Amino acid sequence: METLIQPKVLKGFRDFLPNQEILRSDLIEKLTHTYRSYGFVPIDTPVLEYTEILLRKSNGETEKQVFRFEDNGGRDVAMRFDLTVPFARFTAEHKDELYFPFKRYHCAKVWRGEKPQAGRYREFVQCDFDIVGSDSASSDFEILSLMKAALKGIGVDKVTIHVNHRGIFNRFLAKIGCAEKSEDVLRIVDKLAKVGAEEVKTELTEVTGSEASASQILEYIVPQKDFDSTLAHIESLAGGVAEDTSRMRDIRAMMCAAGIDDSYVLDPSITRGLDYYTGVVYETFLDELPSIGSVCSGGRYDNLAGLYMKDKVPGVGASIGLDRLIAGLEQLGVTEQKGSYLDVEIFNLDDSLAIEYQKLAAQLREEKIAVEVFPDAKKINQQYAVTEKKNVPWGILMTKEECSAGTFTLKNLKTREQFANCSVKDAATKILSK
Amino acid sequence: METLIQPKVLKGFRDFLPNQEILRSDLIEKLTHTYRSYGFVPIDTPVLEYTEILLRKSNGETEKQVFRFEDNGGRDVAMRFDLTVPFARFTAEHKDELYFPFKRYHCAKVWRGEKPQAGRYREFVQCDFDIVGSDSASSDFEILSLMKAALKGIGVDKVTIHVNHRGIFNRFLAKIGCAEKSEDVLRIVDKLAKVGAEEVKTELTEVTGSEASASQILEYIVPQKDFDSTLAHIESLAGGVAEDTSRMRDIRAMMCAAGIDDSYVLDPSITRGLDYYTGVVYETFLDELPSIGSVCSGGRYDNLAGLYMKDKVPGVGASIGLDRLIAGLEQLGVTEQKGSYLDVEIFNLDDSLAIEYQKLAAQLREEKIAVEVFPDAKKINQQYAVTEKKNVPWGILMTKEECSAGTFTLKNLKTREQFANCSVKDAATKILSK
Repeated sequence: METLIQPKVLKGFRDFLPNQEILRSDLIEKLTHTYRSYGFVPIDTPVLEYTEILLRKSNGETEKQVFRFEDNGGRDVAMRFDLTVPFARFTAEHKDELYFPFKRYHCAKVWRGEKPQAGRYREFVQCDFDIVGSDSASSDFEILSLMKAALKGIGVDKVTIHVNHRGIFNRFLAKIGCAEKSEDVLRIVDKLAKVGAEEVKTELTEVTGSEASASQILEYIVPQKDFDSTLAHIESLAGGVAEDTSRMRDIRAMMCAAGIDDSYVLDPSITRGLDYYTGVVYETFLDELPSIGSVCSGGRYDNLAGLYMKDKVPGVGASIGLDRLIAGLEQLGVTEQKGSYLDVEIFNLDDSLAIEYQKLAAQLREEKIAVEVFPDAKKINQQYAVTEKKNVPWGILMTKEECSAGTFTLKNLKTREQFANCSVKDAATKILSK
Repeated sequence: METLIQPKVLKGFRDFLPNQEILRSDLIEKLTHTYRSYGFVPIDTPVLEYTEILLRKSNGETEKQVFRFEDNGGRDVAMRFDLTVPFARFTAEHKDELYFPFKRYHCAKVWRGEKPQAGRYREFVQCDFDIVGSDSASSDFEILSLMKAALKGIGVDKVTIHVNHRGIFNRFLAKIGCAEKSEDVLRIVDKLAKVGAEEVKTELTEVTGSEASASQILEYIVPQKDFDSTLAHIESLAGGVAEDTSRMRDIRAMMCAAGIDDSYVLDPSITRGLDYYTGVVYETFLDELPSIGSVCSGGRYDNLAGLYMKDKVPGVGASIGLDRLIAGLEQLGVTEQKGSYLDVEIFNLDDSLAIEYQKLAAQLREEKIAVEVFPDAKKINQQYAVTEKKNVPWGILMTKEECSAGTFTLKNLKTREQFANCSVKDAATKILSK
């Protein structure tokens, strides 16, 4: 006999058992439904791309993490590590077949060879939505509005979306003579929530070489009592009204007009670190579990596909980190446990009735009932046990005598209530009415 | 300026533009819906696995085609080339967490470095469904029934499912003294539809070393006038009644009881070549386009996870080759072209109304209307052109005057009919009634 191979997945990778996968696919379906209702359409791109296309603009960290290899044809290829770079390549490659503004969503797996740790995986799902080809307050707002609607659509109602504008911040940094340090400053400021004001100030002093600059920056990034006063505050620190602050006011007015302004705060400490954003940026925190970090982030970039074509395509978008979100929902205990999509199980009391059971199943399916036949005449308790794992609400028991009489017994598997002498129509009515 | 990188996908890989991806995801949703209604539940497994796990049982052909590499941790890994091997590993790894019979579906991408040619891709989607842990006519039938129901659910009604049983064939081969050549014989017979009887006979003669045996095999594989007479014919050639022919009769009785027997033929030439099947096997052809080959195939295997555990788990399943099916549907011209999921486009007649347009969109969304605002006040014909590409049925036009009066104009974008002085409720009623 051959030796057995130990069945195991790679470190940082995961199997999804039915309960988990049902949850994940239900969430993706609901998110997708909301994306679509806002006019976004799906696209798909290959998991493998030329490494040159994926990595040209990346920093060293990404390069270390990417799954990269030479294929059988000697090509240098890599698995995508996000959905944005492939979308940029896609936009450039198909620009003549697309229309603009173009609004796409893409829910798919990406791979990063990160050190596995709690909540970090090497294979995970991102749910992205972007509008490219429009630099307008309307599209900024539409993404922000959709972030809230998409989360609401999956029952996540208590969220706060922290919004900021890179342009205002950059204007401010130029004004206090720190423009050249902006990358470092953005990176440090981004850690405010994580490391606290003290540490941020120390690092800012180091980077800017001036405690006074550090204090000014700290003053800038602390939110005021509400959206409008924070906006007035940073606007004045940045040197007054400009396109960036008008844009922010327009977005704010749209939030109020749509009656969803309560969910957004202007938070000048949100910078999205080293990312390629140039306009609005945002992060989303669960009110009841902010500690797990942002579950939906994004922003505006002024040139999506610049590596691949000359035309400038501005865009704005966001991404829901599904795995982190699910981890959060599970911690909050708000996830539903659904074992299957069945309405009714036809138990197998007698193998000689197998054909009759299948006939009954076919009749119930005509009535739009989701039904299966237990395939083997195992002990009834074993059959009940499987049915319970699958959370099936109804059972059908049909003995030889009942079968001859053309009836069966319908059983509510939760309450154990039984209904004898049922016909297909009786059963369908009872099952569908619940 | 940096040189531009040419945006292109790898040979044999494809992007999916919105029209194509909408079609593909609609089909997957419908298939999934039917799978679920039969009691199948989703699982997911990693795209990357240890090469040892994926390749142990494979033949040389698969090994040449697999995308395999050493990861950053020095592990020998590979991208899955089907969904069956990972499912076998999954079943062994989680056998104590699962229940049996276990019915799973899995619609996902797989990768094979095949020579790209018409209709062959290196990345493609499989839609698998299997029942493991039951060796019963009921589960054989359930898979066969679901094949038909799933295809019907996506509008593919005219199909013929060719069924056979490996056991009967093997019994017959033993009887005529060809048991030892069975692998070669199965491989040759499987080509009957492709190469014709003449060529099959020549090859069979070569392999069996006897023209008489070749003739006997040819006589065996030709279907008789109907299911029952073919069954009687091969049963008698194989030496009479046995478990395999009784199983076939039970399955046939279930087809008749469920009223779907018209769609199945017993075709003794179907063998599924070198695959690991041990019982029933089947292939599905589009009646109007049989030339594209089988769009849904599968069969029964007696030991799914034997490489990874001692317990024997019998199973039966099938797989829909989605890409081939879509190619077929497109050739038949039966695919729907849907550009988006929108009900209505709010055109941008005046940028100063942007906030009002967003307010109106928010109100329409409350009425469950799928709506977007055109983000920039481009020329109206440009806006119409984009809306047409997205196949939006309704448009809303709102001028400053109308906005002040609290009304707008609703336009049917197909018939060009216009309705002035609309309120949100008026519009919602009109839009949802269509």
